[in-house]
Amino acid sequence: MASSFKTLFFFSLLLISTHQYHPLDPLTHSELNQVQAIIKGSSRNPHHNLTFQYVGLDEPDKKVIQSWLSNPTAENPPRRAFIIARINHKTHELIVDLSTSVTISDKVYEGAGYPMLTFEEQTAAGKLPFTYPPFIASISKRGLKLEEVVCGSFTVGWYGEKKERAKRIVRVMCYYLDGTVNLYMRPIEAVTVTVDLDEMKITGFVDRLMVPVPKAEGTDYRGSQQRPPFGPRLKGITVSQPDGPSFTVDGHTVRWANWRFHLAFDMRAGPIISLASIYDVDKDENRSVLYKGFVSELFVPYMDLTEEWYYRTFFDAGEFGFGLCAVPLEPLRDCPENAVFLDGYFTGQDGTPGMISNVFCVFERYAGDVMWRHTEVEIPGKMIREVRPEVSLVVRMVSTVGNYDYIVDWEFKQAGSIKVTVGLSGLLEVRGSVYTHTDQIQEEEYGTLLAENTLGTYHDHFLTYHLDLDVDGEANSFVKTNLQSTRVTGNKSPRKAYWTVASETARTEADARIQIGSKPAELIVVNPNKKTRVGNHIGYRLMPGPTASSLLSDDDYAQIRGAFTKYNVWVTPYNKSEKWAGGVFVDQSQGDDNLAVWSQRNRAIENKDIVLWYTLGFHHVPCQEDFPIMPTLSSGFELRPANFFEHNPVLKVKPPESVQWPNCSRVTQP
Amino acid sequence: MASSFKTLFFFSLLLISTHQYHPLDPLTHSELNQVQAIIKGSSRNPHHNLTFQYVGLDEPDKKVIQSWLSNPTAENPPRRAFIIARINHKTHELIVDLSTSVTISDKVYEGAGYPMLTFEEQTAAGKLPFTYPPFIASISKRGLKLEEVVCGSFTVGWYGEKKERAKRIVRVMCYYLDGTVNLYMRPIEAVTVTVDLDEMKITGFVDRLMVPVPKAEGTDYRGSQQRPPFGPRLKGITVSQPDGPSFTVDGHTVRWANWRFHLAFDMRAGPIISLASIYDVDKDENRSVLYKGFVSELFVPYMDLTEEWYYRTFFDAGEFGFGLCAVPLEPLRDCPENAVFLDGYFTGQDGTPGMISNVFCVFERYAGDVMWRHTEVEIPGKMIREVRPEVSLVVRMVSTVGNYDYIVDWEFKQAGSIKVTVGLSGLLEVRGSVYTHTDQIQEEEYGTLLAENTLGTYHDHFLTYHLDLDVDGEANSFVKTNLQSTRVTGNKSPRKAYWTVASETARTEADARIQIGSKPAELIVVNPNKKTRVGNHIGYRLMPGPTASSLLSDDDYAQIRGAFTKYNVWVTPYNKSEKWAGGVFVDQSQGDDNLAVWSQRNRAIENKDIVLWYTLGFHHVPCQEDFPIMPTLSSGFELRPANFFEHNPVLKVKPPESVQWPNCSRVTQP
Repeated sequence: MASSFKTLFFFSLLLISTHQYHPLDPLTHSELNQVQAIIKGSSRNPHHNLTFQYVGLDEPDKKVIQSWLSNPTAENPPRRAFIIARINHKTHELIVDLSTSVTISDKVYEGAGYPMLTFEEQTAAGKLPFTYPPFIASISKRGLKLEEVVCGSFTVGWYGEKKERAKRIVRVMCYYLDGTVNLYMRPIEAVTVTVDLDEMKITGFVDRLMVPVPKAEGTDYRGSQQRPPFGPRLKGITVSQPDGPSFTVDGHTVRWANWRFHLAFDMRAGPIISLASIYDVDKDENRSVLYKGFVSELFVPYMDLTEEWYYRTFFDAGEFGFGLCAVPLEPLRDCPENAVFLDGYFTGQDGTPGMISNVFCVFERYAGDVMWRHTEVEIPGKMIREVRPEVSLVVRMVSTVGNYDYIVDWEFKQAGSIKVTVGLSGLLEVRGSVYTHTDQIQEEEYGTLLAENTLGTYHDHFLTYHLDLDVDGEANSFVKTNLQSTRVTGNKSPRKAYWTVASETARTEADARIQIGSKPAELIVVNPNKKTRVGNHIGYRLMPGPTASSLLSDDDYAQIRGAFTKYNVWVTPYNKSEKWAGGVFVDQSQGDDNLAVWSQRNRAIENKDIVLWYTLGFHHVPCQEDFPIMPTLSSGFELRPANFFEHNPVLKVKPPESVQWPNCSRVTQP
Repeated sequence: MASSFKTLFFFSLLLISTHQYHPLDPLTHSELNQVQAIIKGSSRNPHHNLTFQYVGLDEPDKKVIQSWLSNPTAENPPRRAFIIARINHKTHELIVDLSTSVTISDKVYEGAGYPMLTFEEQTAAGKLPFTYPPFIASISKRGLKLEEVVCGSFTVGWYGEKKERAKRIVRVMCYYLDGTVNLYMRPIEAVTVTVDLDEMKITGFVDRLMVPVPKAEGTDYRGSQQRPPFGPRLKGITVSQPDGPSFTVDGHTVRWANWRFHLAFDMRAGPIISLASIYDVDKDENRSVLYKGFVSELFVPYMDLTEEWYYRTFFDAGEFGFGLCAVPLEPLRDCPENAVFLDGYFTGQDGTPGMISNVFCVFERYAGDVMWRHTEVEIPGKMIREVRPEVSLVVRMVSTVGNYDYIVDWEFKQAGSIKVTVGLSGLLEVRGSVYTHTDQIQEEEYGTLLAENTLGTYHDHFLTYHLDLDVDGEANSFVKTNLQSTRVTGNKSPRKAYWTVASETARTEADARIQIGSKPAELIVVNPNKKTRVGNHIGYRLMPGPTASSLLSDDDYAQIRGAFTKYNVWVTPYNKSEKWAGGVFVDQSQGDDNLAVWSQRNRAIENKDIVLWYTLGFHHVPCQEDFPIMPTLSSGFELRPANFFEHNPVLKVKPPESVQWPNCSRVTQP
């Protein structure tokens, strides 16, 4: 086995060296090394007090990409990296050119807010309490063993402080193991350590009150720790593709059925889907659908006003890195047997590249569903039954941002849909409490009592997707097809009411801010310059799933920062700099750079290159089933062709070969 | 093969003869024969002018079932059948006792509305035009060939006519084949034949205007009729369970993982799920969840005011029989390889039983999803990853009500959820039109121009589910957990706003009428008499998917009949007679017997045996992708435990054995 792996490795090196990079490919391991060398080597930057907070591709302009696409044999656009670094306690935004190894831009950012935290500084901050006598005393006072304590770093948000006074701090909160690995179910409540990340020292300490640490019993979720009685165990079930998958991954380009797209890993966004286009068999051409789609921000405000909780209003992408928190996917568990796995690269605090193996999986899904069908019994002498099973392609990443596990899927369907799903699992953030029964609760507690001394705090999850749709071309419009109840007047019909559609094209950004559910409407991105043969505008429809928008007031500090969650839908004109719905520098941001602010300009969005922003929200009232680990809770949305094709694009699709297994000897894994 | 089948058949006969029937089992083939004999043999009923419109189990009272359940070795409750028959042009409701072969009740129904139509009378009505000279002349005038015409029967609704004057009529609308099997895409528009079903003769005929019949080209959906270029074809993919499924079907009782439920076929409702209970490993007991769940009505109003269309406001269950329209499922296409198929029995117009083979499939689904997971990297020196794949059990039926195919799934999850999904596929109902391009359209056309001369009419689908939840016992309450935006007063916290929950128990029916999306709330059915260890009420939560409620005005005749679609949620006290949301006699009903009417009594529903009614709605604006056959459009909802269990019920579930196939010889089917 070892030798064949080596051979494979050799071949893939060969392939890489001769491979023409796609201009949207993420930075490679060697390019990340090069970035480190360039930045460290720059004479202006002394080696001490330099930390890499973010490194990623500095994407060529959309025009450059489009022109390269029209002539991909031409020379590639220059490869550039975008770096956010802290240099001598200042935030720098740098761009380096990788062909010339030259830093072509170095700006010091003076505004409010700080870059993404590195893992290393979070870990370092989490270690400080262990040498801090007041903390040690607090642990001891509670009768806890210091060696069973684990601490984590929490961003602090912004509550009206002046920009000048905002130090780069985190709160360090600690948990207790001692008989469990489920630290999040055992908070050492009311002990707060404040750490200055730049100085990497403790600048504040509060031990406010004594709260029981919830017990370890019943919290460990490891299979090895479970004791009988067990529930029923299912027999084996698997997905098989004896002839292998029907997709190819060439570099970062995935081709499957009628779809083609580019898949890149970014340490902030996680998966970035680019240049998704669908082959139209009638037109014999690849037609563009999505120039780019990714999770732009993830706002998670908690609803607990107590001193150790009020500030917990996290921005998981901008503060912690949705990609940086990605975890290696486990074959046969996180993804089915027929999955193919891809790795991703990120940059450590000192600029050294790291790899997340199996950061993505790609697999074909056959869930037993039907793509289309009909049985016809009305024709005398004929019984017609035509059924096409639904097979789709899934791209998956899991990001574990501390306690929570986000399972993010991009699913491509042959009929033209892109279905986006997020599943929430992992561990709740709970508050330690004196209560062991709801009867004891006298005052507001901001959560559900999940177990003795364990309150599951109310909170939200808002995932904001950046969806740069290019529906059959760049110039698009956003149309609300309102379904209007209409009264029948006169004696036109025995009916008294019906509904009809009144289409409304959004002229400016203000026209396109929508809370889903506020009124019945179909939301469509159309290409106003192209029509179908019979004259309908070519379009893609946004089909929301269950969602939620923020319930905070506009003047709440957390909401000022997360103002983009007031509406589920926003549309902006394309602007290369408007990538991150919560702003570039989100940690302690003050709400001056986010989607809601950009949108205040109320720019024209009709027949322009536009970006659709969709926020998928969950209000989460925890229940006991979420303890000690949450069964996955999912939601999603779909982008579905609406008069994009002349007719059903899967009319002629032949069902995949049915496979039956008569003679197999199998390997069973425990 | 033949001989082994015979052996199997012999054994199953043996099993049946010794099998103790479950009191909720649907009537068997021989019981249906017995019903026919009893009704036909009754001296009061001359053989002519007797038609069986509905035959089904007359269910024992809930109390009887409960008492039988507590002592299933006791004698079974008496088997009774409920029959709706037309006898000499009157509607009869009959109950017969099958042990004594005695008709124990025979009531003539004098109210408004008629029973479900039989297939036979629809077919007979559809044949009448072919011998009716004015119709033949109309076909000839259009230059069409009579032998290529196919006609179908359409219910006519109610538009204010007096009850006494309402004859049992249908409109017969015709379609053209001639080069396609997709008759629905080729309406012979504006030719309407009215048929009196009791007399089985034509009582009206209108040929209003000449409209082009849309062309056949591009409408045939049969694989055999498609011509190149074809799209890409996928390689084989299948689901394998080498050790067989993990579920058992014993009579009509299905057992899988922690679930147990009874599955019956009814010619009106289709699948009826009863007595769904879940095994709680901690309590070592089966705890009740759903006493009964089924599709109670399916309201499909079209939004076209023209003479041949305004009345198209169908009630697919009450008028056509959602079960009666079920079609045999195709192995490997409608359901995956690992599915098990069950048959269903119905009664023909003359009382002769018929069988729908493969009316249900039951299969385990592994779609590659994750039931729960967590990766823990915060504990120094430890890397923990625990992932449990999601495997669920699906029960499926497909009902093809004329043009539309409804794929109805009941999915049971190990974590306690019951997920209900409906997929819409099949063929649109289109109107023939003079237009070949949208530019020509001057006046309101009530639909989308899908192809030349083909308008896809706007319409809705409302599926109303009867959900008699018995959450850990019969006495339940319905609780709205409202999420309330709250301002922070004083200096309590740096926050200015948060949300909290304000639970509101519905006291009477009026408190429980809800349009989903009108305000943020969790909707929970609780058992107010039982609490978890820490004091939360035991409950199950209704989690709506995307849905819609009716946009018609209250005084619209169609809406008077379908008034139950005004709200997505209603709660009623259990009443054996309140099964059908649109009333028992829906054809030409006048809205005096439906869920909205029953609910006007505003009965007490707190701490009672209650029924939750959920309406899943689609507003359908057709698009060209729906032509000539619709890619499946799905929606659904979930019933999910909320403090029903003390903790995550799948914490201890071991992942199913992973199966790998190293050495297989396979059979490939084309």
